Order: sequence, then C-alpha cells, then structure tokens
Amino acid sequence: MALVEFQRHIMSTPARGRILLSVTGFNPQRWYDLLSKKRDVVLEPAGAEDPSIDYAVVWKQQPGILSRLPNLKVIFSIGAGVDHIFTGDPPPDVPIVRVIADNLTQYMCEYVCWRVLDHHRQGIHYRTQQARKVWRDAQQPPANEVSVGIMGLGELGRHAARALLALGFKVNGWSRGVRTMDGVSTFHGAEGMTPFLNATDILVVLLPLTPATEGIIDHSVLSRLRQDGPLGGPCLINAGRGRLQREADILRALEDGTLKEASLDVFEREPLAPESPLWPHPRVFVTPHAAAVSDPAHLAAPMLRQMEAFERGEALENLVDPKVGY
Amino acid sequence: MALVEFQRHIMSTPARGRILLSVTGFNPQRWYDLLSKKRDVVLEPAGAEDPSIDYAVVWKQQPGILSRLPNLKVIFSIGAGVDHIFTGDPPPDVPIVRVIADNLTQYMCEYVCWRVLDHHRQGIHYRTQQARKVWRDAQQPPANEVSVGIMGLGELGRHAARALLALGFKVNGWSRGVRTMDGVSTFHGAEGMTPFLNATDILVVLLPLTPATEGIIDHSVLSRLRQDGPLGGPCLINAGRGRLQREADILRALEDGTLKEASLDVFEREPLAPESPLWPHPRVFVTPHAAAVSDPAHLAAPMLRQMEAFERGEALENLVDPKVGY
Ligand SMILES: NC(=O)c1ccc[n+]([C@@H]2O[C@H](COP(=O)([O-])OP(=O)(O)OC[C@H]3O[C@@H](n4cnc5c(N)ncnc54)[C@H](OP(=O)(O)O)[C@@H]3O)[C@@H](O)[C@H]2O)c1
Ligand SMILES: NC(=O)c1ccc[n+]([C@@H]2O[C@H](COP(=O)([O-])OP(=O)(O)OC[C@H]3O[C@@H](n4cnc5c(N)ncnc54)[C@H](OP(=O)(O)O)[C@@H]3O)[C@@H](O)[C@H]2O)c1
Repeated sequence: MALVEFQRHIMSTPARGRILLSVTGFNPQRWYDLLSKKRDVVLEPAGAEDPSIDYAVVWKQQPGILSRLPNLKVIFSIGAGVDHIFTGDPPPDVPIVRVIADNLTQYMCEYVCWRVLDHHRQGIHYRTQQARKVWRDAQQPPANEVSVGIMGLGELGRHAARALLALGFKVNGWSRGVRTMDGVSTFHGAEGMTPFLNATDILVVLLPLTPATEGIIDHSVLSRLRQDGPLGGPCLINAGRGRLQREADILRALEDGTLKEASLDVFEREPLAPESPLWPHPRVFVTPHAAAVSDPAHLAAPMLRQMEAFERGEALENLVDPKVGY
Repeated sequence: MALVEFQRHIMSTPARGRILLSVTGFNPQRWYDLLSKKRDVVLEPAGAEDPSIDYAVVWKQQPGILSRLPNLKVIFSIGAGVDHIFTGDPPPDVPIVRVIADNLTQYMCEYVCWRVLDHHRQGIHYRTQQARKVWRDAQQPPANEVSVGIMGLGELGRHAARALLALGFKVNGWSRGVRTMDGVSTFHGAEGMTPFLNATDILVVLLPLTPATEGIIDHSVLSRLRQDGPLGGPCLINAGRGRLQREADILRALEDGTLKEASLDVFEREPLAPESPLWPHPRVFVTPHAAAVSDPAHLAAPMLRQMEAFERGEALENLVDPKVGY
C-alpha cells in the first residue's frame, strides 16, 4: 500500500469502538453488512478479554461471551424484547438499549389487527364451512360490542390499542404501573387483573418476559376472561413471548370450553416441536415468531447513530431497567 | 271487543299508509315485527291494485308485485345495493330509497380490513405451513409498501379507504365521476381504469351492480393489476355484488399466475353452487354474502322515520338514480 493510500485508509477507519455481533438462532449476515459499513464488526472477540470491543449487538448471545470484556460500554438488543439477554448468566453491568422503531411497531399493529379481526369475524368458522361447502352466515356482533384487552401497554401495546379503537373495538389495557389512554379502560397490577380479564373478549398479550410475567397466561387467567361475551367464548392472541404462556393450560382451556380460539406467534420452545398438539389444533393459528421481525435495514442505522451520540457524550435512548428486566 | 277498547284500537292505529314487505331469499320475520310496531304491514297486497299500500320495503321483491299498486309512493331497499329491485321487470316510477347506516358501513370496514390484512400478512401461506408443521417466516413487506385499490368510492368505499389508510396502507380509488379524498390517489372513468389497476396490489371491489358494471371483473382487469408488487402477485376482494365478476375468468387468472389469491363474499349465483370450483380452491376464501348484513334492529326505525318525514312533506334521503341504477 502506498503511503498516501495508507493514510487515507487510516483516516477513513478511525480507531473507534468495535462492535461484537453475537447472534444465535438466525444468520446475522445482513446485520454484519450494515453495521460494518461504519465500524469494525467482529463475530468473536479476540480472546475472552478483548479490549477492542466497546459495543455488543446481540440476539441470544453465546453464553458467557460478554462477561469479561473489559471495555464493553453498551449492549444493544436486536429486538424490542430483552429477555434473551438475561437468559443464562447475567449480562455485565452496562447499559442495555432495546429497539423501538416505527417499522417494528407498524408490523405488530398489523399482526394484532389481523388476528383480532380474524377472531372477531369468525375466520375459523367460515374456513370450516367452506371446506364443507356450507353457505350460511353466522350471527355477527359489530366491533363496538366486542372488548379487546391488551396486556402490556408499552410501545407496542399502546399503538395496537389505538389501531383497534380506530377499527371500532372497545379496548381495555393492563400494565404494571398506572397508565391512562384516551378511549381505553386501563387497569394495573395484581388487583387490576381480574376486573381487566372479566371485561375482555379477545386477550392480546404484549408483555415482556420477566421474572414477574413468566407463565402468567395460565388456566386461571383464561378462565377469568368474559365467558358470556358476544363471540361465544373468549379468544387469546400471544405476540409477546412464548414463556409467558403455559401451553398445557391453553390446550386444556380449549378443550374444556374456557377458551374458544387462539392465535399464537410465540411458544415455550421455538421452533415449535413437530409433536406439539398446537400445530394440528383446529382452533389454533400458529405463526413462526413472525409478528414483528427486526429488520436490519430499518434498525442498524439508528443503532450506529446511538453509538456516535454516546461517544459525543449524549444520553442513550430506549434503555432497559435490568432490575425489572424490561 | 268493548266499544272503549275498539276506539282505543282505532286511535292507536291511524289510517296511515300501509307497508308491503316483499322479500325473497331470507325470512323477513324480524323486519315484519319491527315495522309493524308503527304501521300496518302486509306480505301480500289485497289484489294486484291494492290501494292501501303507500310503501314497499323490498329485497328481491316477488316479480310484478309493485307494478300496479295505484298509491305506491316510495320503495325502500333492504340493503345498500338496489340492483335486486331492477332485476326482472322495471319497478314503477316512484322514488327508491337505499340504506346508508353506520352499522352497515362499520361491518363493511371490518370485512375489508380483515381480508386486506389476511392477504397482506399471508394468512393462506401460514395456514398451509401450519398444516405441514413448517416453522419458517416469510418475507413481509410493511403495509406502506402495499397499495390497496378500491373500485367504488361511495359510502362504503370511502370509509374502507379511511380505515386502510389508518392501518398504514397506500390507497388508490376509482369511481365514475371525479372524487377526491385526502391521502388517496383517485382515478375515474374508463380512461382512469388502467392507471388505477397498474398501481394496485390488492383490489377491493365495492361497486354497485348496474348495466355499466356488470361483469367488469374479468381477466383483462385482473391482468392489469401490478404484477411485480411486494406480495408476489395481486389479490382480489369482492364485497360488492357477484355479477360484477366473471368467475371463470377469476379461476383462469388464479391458474395462469395472473392472480395470487381471492376473497369473495358475493357470487354470480347465490348460494354458491356445491359444484363450483371456488369452494375447494386453496387460494380462494369464500364467505356467504356476509360482509355487511342489513340488521333490521338498526335499519327499520330510520325507515319508519323517513316515512313520517315524507308525510310531513320533507325530502327523502339516500335516493337512488334509476337512470344509472345506483
Ligand atoms: N412476536 C414478535 O415478533 C415480537 C416482536 C417485538 C416484540 N415482542 C414482544 O413484545 C414485548 C412488548 O414490547 P414493547 O416494546 O411494547 O415493551 P415495553 O414498551 O417495555 O412495554 C411493556 C409493557 O408491559 C407492561 N408490564 C411489564 N411487566 C409487567 C407486569 N409484571 N405486570 C403488568 N404489566 C407489565 C409494562 O407496564 P408499565 O407500562 O407499567 O411499565 C408496559 O406497559 C417485548 O418485550 C417482546 O417480548 C414480540
Ligand atoms: N357484500 C355485502 O354484504 C354488501 C353489503 C352492502 C353493500 N354491498 C354492495 O356495495 C355496493 C356499494 O355500496 P355503497 O353504499 O358504497 O354505494 P354508493 O355510495 O352508491 O357508491 C358507489 C360507488 O361506485 C361508483 N360507481 C358506480 N358505477 C360506476 C361505474 N360505472 N364506473 C366507476 N365507478 C362507478 C360510484 O361512483 P361515483 O362516486 O362517481 O358515483 C361510487 O363511488 C352496493 O351497491 C352493494 O352492491 C354489499
């Protein structure tokens, strides 16, 4: 390399913090390509105590990989949820930034409206009739007689609530702390849970997975949903995390008449095992954790901008509270 | 009956115009019950020239039943569409009132959003994968890269357009005359049709059935839809009238790759014949003319109010132009 070229090279790749990209479960090539346009990206640290790494961009990082990096400054989650970071050994005590992006919120709104409308407009019933060539219209309540209850009124839950109101549904919401929203009946905490469930026909789960929410969707919760509502039985939509739900309880509730139908995007173990009775269940709709996929084309650039802002001394956005786990 | 009771009876049923309720294809009992709370209702005129009948409330009236009634003043359609009145012999030359009601518009918005989201979010694809226990997420464009084109920007089309905009879709509209709508790219007439279709990924048909629109959804129209759009092929939703479509052309378009999927609520002949290849088609979703059912609980009272207003000399609302047939 001629001296001039070498100098140009040095100037265009200043010695800025490197990124460790640690992903399991999918191929991170597109993330790699986009992040490495601006910074050095490595898939493995150069030894357990690699001092060149300032940032980790992770989805279910390899076990133990973050713990001993002496200069790690920020962990970025690929995704709105951060439970995957806390699984296994605890992450080092540095700020954790999660994804909030129009694109992701939009996908989740679409998914929630799609599934709510399919339960409301009796998609399973009409598809069964079609298979039997039956021409008969079912009783159809209008949306304003149906209550959708959203568990988790965060970034995704609030937007879904607004979209459902625009479609004409009644909307209830449940959160940890007090939340108010125009047009939404809100409830919170343990004491708000039963009244929230009692007033809900279609339950939409958009909670994060934390020690407090793990396994929350059990038979007891499902049995408190409105049983005499206008849809002939309550419906469940889970687009949060699989370990929020007890799948054995969901199956029991479908069989004993507690639950009419379910749309599940997430599962206790993913991919869903071929032997799971959820796959062939006629009243369950399965999608492969596809409600709102993190798209690097929309998310990599904001991450890189946060790194630059951080280096200028600005505050990080969308921080997670590790004490509560979301 | 004692004299006093007889007088009370006379006073509570003043000699006002009687209603002929002429319905085929469904049981009009609920209409009868609700209308007869305020007026005398008959299901058959007392002879071809029954002078006691001022109003006809009809859905596919019995052939010839309206023509010779000497005092018929107004025909009320049970439903937003009035093509059923013009089928067979022409109706007498009196005003025809059609239904416009929040309730009906709401149902149609729900149906259109439901079907658009199911095509957009690849419901058929995911249901097929579920049957095969396949865990794989599909490429998913966001709604703002998908164009929904609405044929018919009337009462129902305009509301559907607004709901689809709120969900994030791009929306095109096509009408007979010039129509403008915030956020919607509008086209009209024969010369606007090809550019409208070329810019459309999901075609929603909400036209009335008239001599000008009969059979309009043919192979030529389907082949002008955007073929290289983000959904891997265009989709058709018809919630207008069955005779707007050529079912043989739809089937051909599904087979030759012109059309990806269809949701059909209406059919050339209803009920759809058991031998129709639409029933078992894996990429067609059939509902039994159930998108927006006229609910007498919401519609009978406004009809009765229009009769009273008419008798006070006020103008009728929601009039049909018999020259254009809608
Ligand atoms: N399926 C998919 O494709 C997909 C895609 C993206 C995200 N997700 C999931 O969606 C979740 C929600 O995302 P988000 O961005 O909306 O999160 P968020 O903004 O952090 O909101 C979380 C909401 O849950 C509530 N909550 C947390 N713990 C609770 C508890 N113990 N009891 C009651 N309410 C509790 C919070 O209450 P407060 O308001 O009181 O804090 C808040 O309203 C993510 O954590 C992720 O797991 C799934
Ligand atoms: N499946 C169901 O359950 C169900 C329920 C209710 C209604 N429907 C159907 O939905 C239809 C629409 O209802 P609506 O209340 O929205 O009707 P509308 O208010 O009369 O609107 C009709 C629209 O179609 C347009 N149009 C009519 N003839 C046309 C032509 N030759 N070329 C281009 N555009 C044309 C009109 O254009 P202009 O704006 O220029 O006049 C108008 O925008 C009804 O006629 C009925 O058949 C179905």
